[in-house]
Formats: sequence, C-alpha cells, structure tokens
Amino acid sequence: MYSAEYIQTIIRQKLAEAEYDREPHGLYEPIRYMMDLSGKRLRPALCLLACDLFGGDIKLALDPAVGIEIFHNFTLMHDDIMDDAPVRRCKPTVYKKWNQNTAILSGDTMMALAYEYLMKAPAFALQEVLKEFNRTAIGVCEGQQYDMDFETQTEVTIDDYHRMIRLKTAFLIAGSLKIGAIIANAPPEDAGKIWSFGNNLGIAFQLKDDLLDVFSDHNKFGKMKGGDIAINKKTYLYLKSLELANPAQKKILKKYLSPLFTDQKAKIEQVIKIYEELGIRDHVWQEMQKYHLSAMSFLSQINVNRDRKSEISKIAGQMLIRET
Amino acid sequence: MYSAEYIQTIIRQKLAEAEYDREPHGLYEPIRYMMDLSGKRLRPALCLLACDLFGGDIKLALDPAVGIEIFHNFTLMHDDIMDDAPVRRCKPTVYKKWNQNTAILSGDTMMALAYEYLMKAPAFALQEVLKEFNRTAIGVCEGQQYDMDFETQTEVTIDDYHRMIRLKTAFLIAGSLKIGAIIANAPPEDAGKIWSFGNNLGIAFQLKDDLLDVFSDHNKFGKMKGGDIAINKKTYLYLKSLELANPAQKKILKKYLSPLFTDQKAKIEQVIKIYEELGIRDHVWQEMQKYHLSAMSFLSQINVNRDRKSEISKIAGQMLIRET
Repeated sequence: MYSAEYIQTIIRQKLAEAEYDREPHGLYEPIRYMMDLSGKRLRPALCLLACDLFGGDIKLALDPAVGIEIFHNFTLMHDDIMDDAPVRRCKPTVYKKWNQNTAILSGDTMMALAYEYLMKAPAFALQEVLKEFNRTAIGVCEGQQYDMDFETQTEVTIDDYHRMIRLKTAFLIAGSLKIGAIIANAPPEDAGKIWSFGNNLGIAFQLKDDLLDVFSDHNKFGKMKGGDIAINKKTYLYLKSLELANPAQKKILKKYLSPLFTDQKAKIEQVIKIYEELGIRDHVWQEMQKYHLSAMSFLSQINVNRDRKSEISKIAGQMLIRET
Repeated sequence: MYSAEYIQTIIRQKLAEAEYDREPHGLYEPIRYMMDLSGKRLRPALCLLACDLFGGDIKLALDPAVGIEIFHNFTLMHDDIMDDAPVRRCKPTVYKKWNQNTAILSGDTMMALAYEYLMKAPAFALQEVLKEFNRTAIGVCEGQQYDMDFETQTEVTIDDYHRMIRLKTAFLIAGSLKIGAIIANAPPEDAGKIWSFGNNLGIAFQLKDDLLDVFSDHNKFGKMKGGDIAINKKTYLYLKSLELANPAQKKILKKYLSPLFTDQKAKIEQVIKIYEELGIRDHVWQEMQKYHLSAMSFLSQINVNRDRKSEISKIAGQMLIRET
C-alpha cells in the first residue's frame, strides 16, 4: 500500500516527463504552460489511490491518471475563456497570455491528448475505462452549461445548484476514483461505492471552492476576491443567503447580483456584507460536513480491510481542510 | 457490395436517428442544429465504403462512422469561431446564432460524443480504431494551428501549405477510410494504402475547396465570395500566384493580402483580378489532378478485385467534380 504523498510524487514525476515540445509550438506551448501551473494533482492521485485501495497495480493506472489530469486542465482552459477569467494561480490564463483562438485550439488538442493517455489503460479494462471517462466528460460539459445558464436565469433553486456542481465538479472526482477501481479489477458493487464516495466528496469540495472565493487569503489562492460575485455566479453562498435573508436583504442580494448592476466593487462589497450578516460561512461549512459524512459512509461500506482506507480518507480530509 | 448512394442513405438515416434532445437544451440544441446543416456526409461514407471494399460488415462500422461525422462537425463549429465566420451553408454559424461560449462548449461536448460513437467499434478492432482516430484528431488540431499561424506569418511556402492541408483536411479523410478498413480486418499493408489514397484525395479535395472560395456559384455554396481572401488566408491560389507573379503583381498581392489592409471589398477584388490575370484556376486544377492520380495509384495497388473498387473510385471522382 502506498502513501498519498508517494502517489503524488510519482504523478508529479510522470507529468514532468510528459512531452509537449511537438510542432507547431503555437499549439503545444500553451499546453505545457497550463500543465505546469501546478495544482494539487488531486484527480490523478485519487485515481491511483482507488487502484491501490482495491489491490491493483498502480503502474497500470498511471497513464490513465495523467489523461484525467490533462482533461481537467483542458476544462479549465476553456472555462477561463467562458468565464472571462484573467488570472489562474497568480498567472495570466492562456487566453489572456496568448489569445482566445489559442485557448480554444490548444484546449481541443488537450482533450485528444487526454484520450491518448486514457487509451493506455490495460486491455482488459479499456472499454469500461473509456466508457466511464466519456460519461464523465459529457457530464462535465453539461455541468458547465447549467453553470452558464444560471448567470442569466433569475430563478435558481438549491436543487438546481446541486445538479450543476454534481456534474461540473463531482463527476470528475467520482470518475477518477472509479477508473482506478476498474483498473484494479474491483467488484462492480465496490466500484459503484467508490464512485458515490467521490460524488459526495466532490460536492463538499465545490462548496469549499465557493467559500474560498469570498473567505480566503486571496494572495495565496491566486484569484480575485469575490470573482464569482463579480460575474453573477449563483453559488451555494448566494442561494442559501437568499433562503435565509429577510425581505430587505433579499432585495439587496437580487439587485446587486445581476448583470444589470455593473459597478463591480460595490457589487462585491454589498453581497459580502450580507453574507457576513447571515453568517453564511457556517451554513456552508455545515453543508460541507453533511456531504463529507455521506462520502465517508460510502467508503466504510466498501468491502476492503479498514486499514487500506486510511490514505484515501486522509486525502479526502485534506481536500476539505478549513482554510477559510 | 453496396453502392455509394445506398451507403449515403443509411448514413443519413442513422444520423437522423441520433438523439440530441438531452438536457440541458442550451447545450444540445446547437449540436442538433449543426448536425442538421446537412453536408455530403463524405467522411462517414468513405469509412463505410472502405469497410465494404475489404469485405467487412458495414453495420459494424456505422457507429464509428457517425462518430467521425460528429467529430468533423465539432471542428467546423470551433473553426467558425476562430475564423470569425458568420455563415455556413446559407445559415448563421452556431457562434453567431447563439454565442461564442455556446459554440465552445457544445463543440467540446461533440468531441466527447464522437468518442462515444467511436467506442462502439467491435471489440477486436477497438484499440486500433481509437488509436487511428486519436492520431487523426490531434493532426486536425495541428493543421488548424498552422492555418492560423499563416494568417500573421509573412513568409509561407507551398511546402508549408501542403503540410497544413495534409493535417487539417487530408488526415480526417485518410483516417475515415483507414478506420473502415480496420473494422473490415483488412491486412495492415492494404489499410496503409487506403490511408495513402485518402491522404492524396484529401489534398486534392482541399485544393478544390480553395478554388471554390473564389470561383463558384456562391449562392449555391452558401459562403461569401473571397471569404478566404477577406481573412488573409494563405491558400494555394495565393501562394502559387506569388510564385507566378511578375514583380508588380507580387507587390499588389502582398499589399492587399495583409491584415494591415482593411478595405475588404477592394482586397477581394484586387486579389481576384490578379488570380484571373495569372490563370490560377488552371494551375490549381492541374495540381488537383496530380493528387487525384496519385490517390488512384494507391487504390490500384490494393490487393482487392478491381470491381470492388468502383464505388470508392466513383465517390473520389465526385469529390473533385469541376463545379467551378
């Protein structure tokens, strides 16, 4: 059994070895740049940890795990265009540093590269791995569409929000774990449970991300404070606040979080002020805990010795550490 | 053995059956719209014809062929954003009818859908089919990058141009044929030859497309006359003209086909005037013939009864009919 630290080390090594110095440079340079913007390499780590959990050979899951990380970075590259986001991890996004066409096309290439790596899954697992990956990829696109729809939609419920983040964020976390399980030849029932573990963990993880947009050390985080508010994103913070707000607060929230209100500074200030009045941070925190507990319950049901689950529990805990 | 007409009919039926009425509508409506913009369904037809050529069961190639057509339409959807093209087949392009983010995201989804269909290849051929498809997809992206690079590059040679269209256009035509051959379990040597047939045919086909931009009935063609000139595309017409031009003509060509010269009407008129002075139409026509002959030579080397090659020869001929 491998430690999460060891697994993250071999993923970093494998990613550093990946070659993108192919021609034309205009296509591959932005891919290298994007892949080098670091990040925690969480999804490939989860893939390998799940493989290891079920006693699989993690070497067989290494290429598919890299494919998952490339896919994840492809979605970020395209999302940055769609969200008009200038900065990621304290550096200019690809479409800002180069241009939009480059970000579209280098992103497209990354998607094909992702499949190239996924296809290196062992023959016995190939069909199932690709099926799971495809289902995940389509889900992620659907989630991004719901997210964009929310920006112009006046009525968004908390249920709508859950469906959106389940697809946009949780699907890839769940899919990464399940792909690891498939490569370890885990029983289908257990592969289903590790997926459900990831699905709940992913929702908790997105709730944390929503929280970090407002309550965090933004220098460390490398993003603008209130970036979600600036682009009128209907986050859990906003939707839960609407539920908790009195009529006066509700009126302010609706007025400010609208494309019609363009003074970004006032928008961010006013919305955060209400979040604080309502103590939204604790509400989100409780919701995170709920999903985390649900995730751990699925993990506990998996028919594997409890000791083997320690590393995956640890990384799940780290994903949700209260940095805010 | 099936006729090209029969094959095109079953492809149209299969494409009409494909369901895109999934949620969210904002994601799938543009996909349906794009897929319904008709077109000749050339690539899936070539895939099935190649399968039939080698005595394969075309039913086994039908889903992968649909995947190829979806992939082709995905590239068009993204190319239209990159080329800032407002019209395709007499209708507004997706990014004009909806918006750019929709065209990015619906395109991304189409790429995943394409793999979904490709993955329905029979198990014995799956790995090889996906490998060929992936190689093709990456090549197409590389070709598009070279094409975009040309727009700002002052020195482009005819060799550069050939590399670009080989990747951007010929690769998918060649790949479609080879995937059909793989599914028919053709000997690797013959599968290689049908690829080379497609590679040469694809170049001839792109030369025709370059020609149609300038010399054609544009109402029928559904595009603006001289659209390539308007966006300073370095087509074969332009590069060959530079080679043939006297110093005065060369000066005009360089002056007008530049991003610095923004009067589009004058740009298109002046460049076409020189094309006509140089009789460029016949030069392109000769070059097309050269590649067509080369394609037919590869076809003739394939170890299959000559009679079986008639349908694929016929469709190759149709692809290059002089509509100009």
